[in-house]
Amino acid sequence: MTEAAALVSNDVKSDNLLYCDVRTITERLAEPLTPEDQTVQSMPDVSPTKWHRAHVTWFFETFVLGVHQPGYQTYDDRFQYLFNSYYEAVGARHPRTDRGLLSRPSADEIGRYRRFVDEAMVLFQSTDLPAELRWLIQLGLHHEQQHQELLVMDAKNVLSRNPLQPVYGPLLWPAAGAGVAGWADHEGGIVSLGHDGNGFSFDNEEPRHDLLLRPFRISEQLVTNEDWLAFMADGGYQRVELWMSEGWSVVQANQWRGPLYWRRADGAPLDGPGGSTSPDSTGAARAETPLMFTLDGLVPIDRAAPVDHVSWFEADAYARWCGARLPLEAEWEVAAPEPSEHRAAAGWYGSVWQWTASPYSPYPGFVPPPGAVGEYNGKFMINQQVLRGSSWATPPGHARRTYRNFFPTAARWCVGGLRVAYDQ
Amino acid sequence: MTEAAALVSNDVKSDNLLYCDVRTITERLAEPLTPEDQTVQSMPDVSPTKWHRAHVTWFFETFVLGVHQPGYQTYDDRFQYLFNSYYEAVGARHPRTDRGLLSRPSADEIGRYRRFVDEAMVLFQSTDLPAELRWLIQLGLHHEQQHQELLVMDAKNVLSRNPLQPVYGPLLWPAAGAGVAGWADHEGGIVSLGHDGNGFSFDNEEPRHDLLLRPFRISEQLVTNEDWLAFMADGGYQRVELWMSEGWSVVQANQWRGPLYWRRADGAPLDGPGGSTSPDSTGAARAETPLMFTLDGLVPIDRAAPVDHVSWFEADAYARWCGARLPLEAEWEVAAPEPSEHRAAAGWYGSVWQWTASPYSPYPGFVPPPGAVGEYNGKFMINQQVLRGSSWATPPGHARRTYRNFFPTAARWCVGGLRVAYDQ
Amino acid sequence: MTEAAALVSNDVKSDNLLYCDVRTITERLAEPLTPEDQTVQSMPDVSPTKWHRAHVTWFFETFVLGVHQPGYQTYDDRFQYLFNSYYEAVGARHPRTDRGLLSRPSADEIGRYRRFVDEAMVLFQSTDLPAELRWLIQLGLHHEQQHQELLVMDAKNVLSRNPLQPVYGPLLWPAAGAGVAGWADHEGGIVSLGHDGNGFSFDNEEPRHDLLLRPFRISEQLVTNEDWLAFMADGGYQRVELWMSEGWSVVQANQWRGPLYWRRADGAPLDGPGGSTSPDSTGAARAETPLMFTLDGLVPIDRAAPVDHVSWFEADAYARWCGARLPLEAEWEVAAPEPSEHRAAAGWYGSVWQWTASPYSPYPGFVPPPGAVGEYNGKFMINQQVLRGSSWATPPGHARRTYRNFFPTAARWCVGGLRVAYDQ
Amino acid sequence: MTEAAALVSNDVKSDNLLYCDVRTITERLAEPLTPEDQTVQSMPDVSPTKWHRAHVTWFFETFVLGVHQPGYQTYDDRFQYLFNSYYEAVGARHPRTDRGLLSRPSADEIGRYRRFVDEAMVLFQSTDLPAELRWLIQLGLHHEQQHQELLVMDAKNVLSRNPLQPVYGPLLWPAAGAGVAGWADHEGGIVSLGHDGNGFSFDNEEPRHDLLLRPFRISEQLVTNEDWLAFMADGGYQRVELWMSEGWSVVQANQWRGPLYWRRADGAPLDGPGGSTSPDSTGAARAETPLMFTLDGLVPIDRAAPVDHVSWFEADAYARWCGARLPLEAEWEVAAPEPSEHRAAAGWYGSVWQWTASPYSPYPGFVPPPGAVGEYNGKFMINQQVLRGSSWATPPGHARRTYRNFFPTAARWCVGGLRVAYDQ
Repeated sequence: MTEAAALVSNDVKSDNLLYCDVRTITERLAEPLTPEDQTVQSMPDVSPTKWHRAHVTWFFETFVLGVHQPGYQTYDDRFQYLFNSYYEAVGARHPRTDRGLLSRPSADEIGRYRRFVDEAMVLFQSTDLPAELRWLIQLGLHHEQQHQELLVMDAKNVLSRNPLQPVYGPLLWPAAGAGVAGWADHEGGIVSLGHDGNGFSFDNEEPRHDLLLRPFRISEQLVTNEDWLAFMADGGYQRVELWMSEGWSVVQANQWRGPLYWRRADGAPLDGPGGSTSPDSTGAARAETPLMFTLDGLVPIDRAAPVDHVSWFEADAYARWCGARLPLEAEWEVAAPEPSEHRAAAGWYGSVWQWTASPYSPYPGFVPPPGAVGEYNGKFMINQQVLRGSSWATPPGHARRTYRNFFPTAARWCVGGLRVAYDQ
Repeated sequence: MTEAAALVSNDVKSDNLLYCDVRTITERLAEPLTPEDQTVQSMPDVSPTKWHRAHVTWFFETFVLGVHQPGYQTYDDRFQYLFNSYYEAVGARHPRTDRGLLSRPSADEIGRYRRFVDEAMVLFQSTDLPAELRWLIQLGLHHEQQHQELLVMDAKNVLSRNPLQPVYGPLLWPAAGAGVAGWADHEGGIVSLGHDGNGFSFDNEEPRHDLLLRPFRISEQLVTNEDWLAFMADGGYQRVELWMSEGWSVVQANQWRGPLYWRRADGAPLDGPGGSTSPDSTGAARAETPLMFTLDGLVPIDRAAPVDHVSWFEADAYARWCGARLPLEAEWEVAAPEPSEHRAAAGWYGSVWQWTASPYSPYPGFVPPPGAVGEYNGKFMINQQVLRGSSWATPPGHARRTYRNFFPTAARWCVGGLRVAYDQ
Repeated sequence: MTEAAALVSNDVKSDNLLYCDVRTITERLAEPLTPEDQTVQSMPDVSPTKWHRAHVTWFFETFVLGVHQPGYQTYDDRFQYLFNSYYEAVGARHPRTDRGLLSRPSADEIGRYRRFVDEAMVLFQSTDLPAELRWLIQLGLHHEQQHQELLVMDAKNVLSRNPLQPVYGPLLWPAAGAGVAGWADHEGGIVSLGHDGNGFSFDNEEPRHDLLLRPFRISEQLVTNEDWLAFMADGGYQRVELWMSEGWSVVQANQWRGPLYWRRADGAPLDGPGGSTSPDSTGAARAETPLMFTLDGLVPIDRAAPVDHVSWFEADAYARWCGARLPLEAEWEVAAPEPSEHRAAAGWYGSVWQWTASPYSPYPGFVPPPGAVGEYNGKFMINQQVLRGSSWATPPGHARRTYRNFFPTAARWCVGGLRVAYDQ
Repeated sequence: MTEAAALVSNDVKSDNLLYCDVRTITERLAEPLTPEDQTVQSMPDVSPTKWHRAHVTWFFETFVLGVHQPGYQTYDDRFQYLFNSYYEAVGARHPRTDRGLLSRPSADEIGRYRRFVDEAMVLFQSTDLPAELRWLIQLGLHHEQQHQELLVMDAKNVLSRNPLQPVYGPLLWPAAGAGVAGWADHEGGIVSLGHDGNGFSFDNEEPRHDLLLRPFRISEQLVTNEDWLAFMADGGYQRVELWMSEGWSVVQANQWRGPLYWRRADGAPLDGPGGSTSPDSTGAARAETPLMFTLDGLVPIDRAAPVDHVSWFEADAYARWCGARLPLEAEWEVAAPEPSEHRAAAGWYGSVWQWTASPYSPYPGFVPPPGAVGEYNGKFMINQQVLRGSSWATPPGHARRTYRNFFPTAARWCVGGLRVAYDQ
């Protein structure tokens, strides 16, 4: 068990220790980023680092202290407006697209805001809290862990837009690899899907329910950069028959030629008007291995590593190219080991999120929790696809076999990769 | 049985009679439209009437005569480019967004094109054709029937944008109503879904497969305009908690206040900056029943009729408003009668397509047919929702219980309405 | 004197004859265009042919009959809304961008509207009218002549967007040529500019006023297509130093490679992603003379003809390329012959409008006329450049030496060419 | 004479002292801004503070040291790309719209870059330089002074977008007022315009040339906030007849209701969907004086101060509203005192730039200087209007009577105000 994973193990720590450990990790993740880095919003989907740091704090202040701590005085009333993400029930909010305009409060000031709320939270948790409140705080911590991943992937996007190719440096935890080659066969039949209610889960993992599957085969190994180079060399980005109609439009409009962060030998993007357009020239690109922008700056592509930062459209086209398909999320869930089974889990968790063939829909019988936190997941259950597993950017201990991540089909700044499946 | 439905009954007619009957209906649908009406493209989703008339003809010319009739000379080679919709495998095509620029060929010229191809097709069908070719021609006719509906709904959109409120007049066939009040209960369990291969179906209805359902209750009756007025009067378009996050953004951005074609008493749109924004004023709108743009021009709303031209986002919000949900397409299919059961079918077919909770995904084991017609359905199976049944604009005889229609979640120019369902 | 020019000569005709002659020319210009052609709006700047035919009629109905003919009943009240172009003082109007949606009224119906108003106007003019009213009618006729040119240039744009390359056919009047080579020198000093009030002029040509000019030399001949090919072959569209900063952005964004209607040998546009980008390949284009879309369809470029359909940005870059500059409108006016001096006028009138270096500003002391017609010109006097002369699309008799035409600097669908000038 | 003005007086200081004084002022202007403030680009027109600080340094490095100092090693080669503004002749550059993505180099790093170049420049200037080089350095200092104003107005825009209403604090120099009421009459005739070549000027102020003016009257006093409130109360933003056609479109599209930085009593913008739309409610706005965002944060409007941050469209509408017009730049120049005449200059300099009726065109005989610095001004001489004088944000000593500032007609983030004129 890694150090970080141990931090979030409920059994051996008091609530306050757990709280402080999660909160500390956020600050440690932000440390390599300058005040300027923490301010930039590189595209509407991305939030600035310091906004993430403040928003997760706002969550505790608004849903825990503001409601349940009598006499609590907010740090700054205006932060209610600035750091609300999308909770309509708690009032107006600053437009998402304008988060990069907030040069104030400064990165330092947000550090003070965090400490102010932390002190109040530690005091609050030193009393005997009812189960609902303990659950709400736990939700806040899982929420913060989600934003730890968002912070990392958003910061990577910000740095990637800088011609100076800045280096973030090593993450707090190691990345997992692609897993080992092999196939798992499943005979299908009625299976159970979703979280069983023991321990924490997000609302979208429930209720647990039965489902009928057909026999299938699923790869034990993730698609690697080596595989992806073969797809490119075979004209993967030029062959319309491999693509969904909407995906092909996106490829054409943005002139996609490879994964988001791949670069030519001279550092220029693969995509765009300067990119290669013919199978020949991507064949050449294969001979001359391209580079990749990472948290360590621009580095040669590691052919053995799982491909990441591809969209659902690309993952789907790749699967079609090799005569396979993406697995359903139910297939993934019945085939996957538990994250705690470390040996077996290689490739399933801690490397890249894995796009599935499943649209993000509510499970049968899904009911969002009452109150403002009911807006957490349910209202996004349309026009997105489910990803399963977890990624190198997911904080250790945050993964679950039943975890449902989701992004729109053209999103590439999230850490999306894939494994393939077949009908049996 | 209506006259039109009889036309497409295989048993009593030769192939050529069937072919001519379907082709004739297209021309009769276009008759009330002037050459100018047939030219306009009111938005990128809409195609001009004369484009539809030419495109369905191009389908026969390209996939049947061009490939299978030795020595066939095309009417005009340039039409290959102009009237290809989205078949990448058969070459370049005129951009969809520019269809409204094609003042030539004229509506009359397209009539000549149709007769030219019809003569060749009749000759071609007078010989003994292998089953695959007969299937291909049948596909072309079902394709043309789909475009008959598109022609009508697109023309309605074109006419609706004209301040003169032009009248198209009565359709060739009557519309069905909302059905009768009542509920159907289903105990759930393993059910079979999809087409069984007897008779024609589109590829997306196959393969037939099993599925596990939970017990549910589904309404026998469609949501009516009366129901929708109650939803509006209760602030349906102003209450964020009823909406998916993306749907709410669409409502705000476009200032939706009611179904697409509803109008104020003075003929102005309900939607947009001039629209009502408070529950009070929509309450007032209820007192003063709004108008509705139809093929008969601007008419008072028929409260008993099923609501139509609402998007999936609106249908979903309505269902949430009444504590229900949209049915899954599987629930719909097991609950629905066959279209031929005329009494029972009231409300299920011939009134409005019914939005379901099911994203448009391939059925397990789906394989598109080989060749260019493989592009017919499969490449659209993402980011759309399934609608079931058929509408007042669907030509009689075209409906099937297993039929899967699909549109994006914000589409309103299609004839979308809804029925609701509950978990049991 | 051409037949058409004779039509508008005041001296020999009664007012009604003059009125009918101008009105007839509009209809004759529309004759080669089908009802479908007359409906299409190929871009927001363009108005459909039948809209022009109705709008000029609306002008007489609104400003003459509606105000001055007691008891006049409009043909259709709703046309007040549909066919107002930009006169804010007379009420709301249909959005300019939506003119292409008006399939109704039909081209035929607009013919009936025209005849209805013509009958009323002829009756109205059979009485003894005060001078102001005679002026107002004269304004309406000059307005209609302006729209005759707009009708032709807009229709050309509509037809140009059709891959079938439709042919409009010969205009009612012949085009003039580029003039003869030679230079006119002017010693500068105080000159008078603007209309002197004898005969009709638009308000923007007044008041006549003095101005100080420096000595200059101006070309007697227009820049020809031959000249333009040399500019292109010398990398004119690739050399940033020749261009205004804003012009260069427009060239890059739209990938301009030649005049608007020039085409490659295969009929594809010179501009756009498929266009040539290197001096080499445009050099090749020179060897292989490109084609040109005209009212006669796609034809080889006439090297001796004046270049047309270039923007101000291109005209300015061309002038800089040959070490010259565009003339000021005052230089043009003092150097130009009167249109009636037919021999001398060759190249100055009837070939292409000539871009000048002068922004379109009010003359010193300019006062717009009172009432709604005061909106005719004054409110457009910013961010446009003046063109002088007249073009092959201008109806004969409409040109004046003091005439000020104006378009934005990126406009290419107007008939813009140029002559160059030098400081002396 | 203010302290800052003294700094740039040539007579009493060596070149190096002058250089250091100008360079120091830039850094002092940036001091109140945090690293985060210095990073944000609030709209494409705005550049981040630290970008300005680096760009003016790049100017010296590129045009002086890089060309004329043998053996000079750049601080960082990549800065050539990052901090080029628009000089095409010296190579590729970072896109203007992406300047806000440059979290690196940090504000501190840019300070080190500045000191590195300053040391090299001081050494370079310690030798005996030819006149052309001394002129080039002088150009660099005037360039930096221009960017001092841009830095201030851009930073104001950045801070204005923050709901926290951050305070920048007092500028290094005092602002001038609106001047005293009164009128100057000028009899017209031939006047000389432009710079006479004694001392420094930008290329666009030359050559000096003669011009014929008509008699005019020009206000000694600037239009004040008091005046502007009267314009608003009289429906200035609602009366279409006061506006240029393009201006009215801009007003409608952006829902302008007052100067850019005016705010309601609750801090919300006057403009936009929440703004007042009827004369009544702006009448109310007058009763309840609005607030104004300034470098001192949100403060009550000073009615006696000159109005600023209005666009040319607004200035032009205001002038029309009071039956006047904007002065021509020539009228301004012959009526204005020299900046050194301190008493007389009140209202002409140091308060707000004054929009004129003159489009920004080259003076007769204008020739840009050879080489890359020839791109300084000439390539912007289209589709902009001239402003004269100087503003509270202009560094003292930078103003000239012949100075030509210019912005597009819809620009409001520059410090634009106005004085009116009449024909005599």
